[in-house]
Amino acid sequence: MLRHVTAALMILAAPALADPLPSWSDGPARQRIIDFVTDVTDPASEEFVPVAERIAVFDNDGTLWSEQPAYFQGIFAFDYVARMGQDDPATLTTDTLKAAAAGDYATVLGGGEEALIEVLGAAQTGRTIEDYQAEVAEWLATARHPYTGMGYDTMTYQPMVELLRYLRDEGFKTYIVSGGGIDFMRVFADRAYGIPTEQVIGSYGDTAYAVGDDGMPVITKTAPLSFLDDKDGKPINIMRIIGKRPIIAGGNSDGDFPMMQWTTAGDGPRLGILIHHTDAEREWAYDRDSHIGQLVRGLDEGPDMGWLIVDMANDWDRIWTGAR
Amino acid sequence: MLRHVTAALMILAAPALADPLPSWSDGPARQRIIDFVTDVTDPASEEFVPVAERIAVFDNDGTLWSEQPAYFQGIFAFDYVARMGQDDPATLTTDTLKAAAAGDYATVLGGGEEALIEVLGAAQTGRTIEDYQAEVAEWLATARHPYTGMGYDTMTYQPMVELLRYLRDEGFKTYIVSGGGIDFMRVFADRAYGIPTEQVIGSYGDTAYAVGDDGMPVITKTAPLSFLDDKDGKPINIMRIIGKRPIIAGGNSDGDFPMMQWTTAGDGPRLGILIHHTDAEREWAYDRDSHIGQLVRGLDEGPDMGWLIVDMANDWDRIWTGAR
Repeated sequence: MLRHVTAALMILAAPALADPLPSWSDGPARQRIIDFVTDVTDPASEEFVPVAERIAVFDNDGTLWSEQPAYFQGIFAFDYVARMGQDDPATLTTDTLKAAAAGDYATVLGGGEEALIEVLGAAQTGRTIEDYQAEVAEWLATARHPYTGMGYDTMTYQPMVELLRYLRDEGFKTYIVSGGGIDFMRVFADRAYGIPTEQVIGSYGDTAYAVGDDGMPVITKTAPLSFLDDKDGKPINIMRIIGKRPIIAGGNSDGDFPMMQWTTAGDGPRLGILIHHTDAEREWAYDRDSHIGQLVRGLDEGPDMGWLIVDMANDWDRIWTGAR
Repeated sequence: MLRHVTAALMILAAPALADPLPSWSDGPARQRIIDFVTDVTDPASEEFVPVAERIAVFDNDGTLWSEQPAYFQGIFAFDYVARMGQDDPATLTTDTLKAAAAGDYATVLGGGEEALIEVLGAAQTGRTIEDYQAEVAEWLATARHPYTGMGYDTMTYQPMVELLRYLRDEGFKTYIVSGGGIDFMRVFADRAYGIPTEQVIGSYGDTAYAVGDDGMPVITKTAPLSFLDDKDGKPINIMRIIGKRPIIAGGNSDGDFPMMQWTTAGDGPRLGILIHHTDAEREWAYDRDSHIGQLVRGLDEGPDMGWLIVDMANDWDRIWTGAR
């Protein structure tokens, strides 16, 4: 029993002892986050929010980890089709798949959404969720980013990892709400961010339930995309799965605009956190004209809605969790 | 600080002190549940399951509350259309709606799924989630069950309410996985069962996100049914939203069969709990031939899969949470 009491005391005491955001520069962005969290968790504050309502949602690509030169899940799919072709060239049945296997991104992207869905379909359907996730895990363990040479799941943003932990220590439930696929993200979300599978919301395809000849049921991935968790899909999915309006939303592109707008338009204290990629030296600098993570409305309208615009170059002392 | 420590001690000590399932008869069903929970929560047991994997899912209609003479959400929809017709007879634009408003269940059900969807659509779309939920709350506060005279949300099963609380006390996350609508169930799930909105999984319709002239975003219910969380839809939705296989599943009809099969086919300790409606005196007795909650496969195949079959008449000392 004494051990339990000591553990309980340590849990009660821990948050106050350490700097919760050591990788954030000592400036207004960091201060604004700490002030917000301090206010909503103080029972004596007018801004107090009960634990059940402390919901924080974050985009993943470009908000919690990098997304250049292409979404990492897209790179996985291209890598997968390339290996498929090495194992058996006959599996590359179309020009699109041949282009993907050759790493010819331009040709595939030139084929529009249909071509991209074909590549995603080849890489992500026709097997069980477990088999697919084992392949993603293997890829994460071995593949390296073309520019940094780092493992993809080490290119998470250390300041955001700290923010997620800080929020959880203060009674928040932290969610991912991403255009990325749920089965893909769930492979690393717990390890990388401390976010369990049931708090990973994202895009998904169709699945089918069937019982095999051995009597064992399996769930098979049958179609690559039936719900795109982007733009209006984000607040729609939040209300469908979480069922209440978050009080914190973080994103980095106009795909996150409706989610952040929905969150910060609610009554009471709300915080929108927009990650602005300003650091060409340590990461990438891109916004209005980017082919990925395009950001226009957030920069134009976010400040009027009171959003915190995080300047990565100035507000973050460190970028990635992993070492380059 | 002393107050916090005392509170922590009370939380640590509470589960061991009280009978966790006072409304269950002192028999093998109750004992099997307690043995299972004791095993999976004992770090010294070979059957130990870490907290993160302690996921328990339960059907709602017929498993956590009654479902006779019709699903309560269906009664809400008929009541709603009746009031709609009283307020403005011109809103009853079809024979189906006129029949629903007259309480003529036979005619509506004779029109098949299409007619039922029409009634559900009239009662549950064309307004925001908040407005819809305010109407459900008003209905729950005033409507009374035609046979018992009880408020619908007091016709929850007290033994199951105790089971949910017991599981949470032992580190489980408890979920509803129901054919009922998410926006409907979320009105009372926390109050009635202690289950927060984000752990309520169910059927849902389409919604649309839009920003009004006043700049405020709203989410509107636009179509009554786009995903039916029943039969194969239950394990599919579990893997889509929770992302891991539960270790406990409870249900009462063949609509729950795949969810219970999926749960209990997993490796390690698993518990399937099938509620058998055997109590014509205190509730209702129905199974193989019932128009609602039909139960055939569960009775035939459940015992071979090791499911616990709960005999309501013998295993429950008390049925409802509310007084008749």
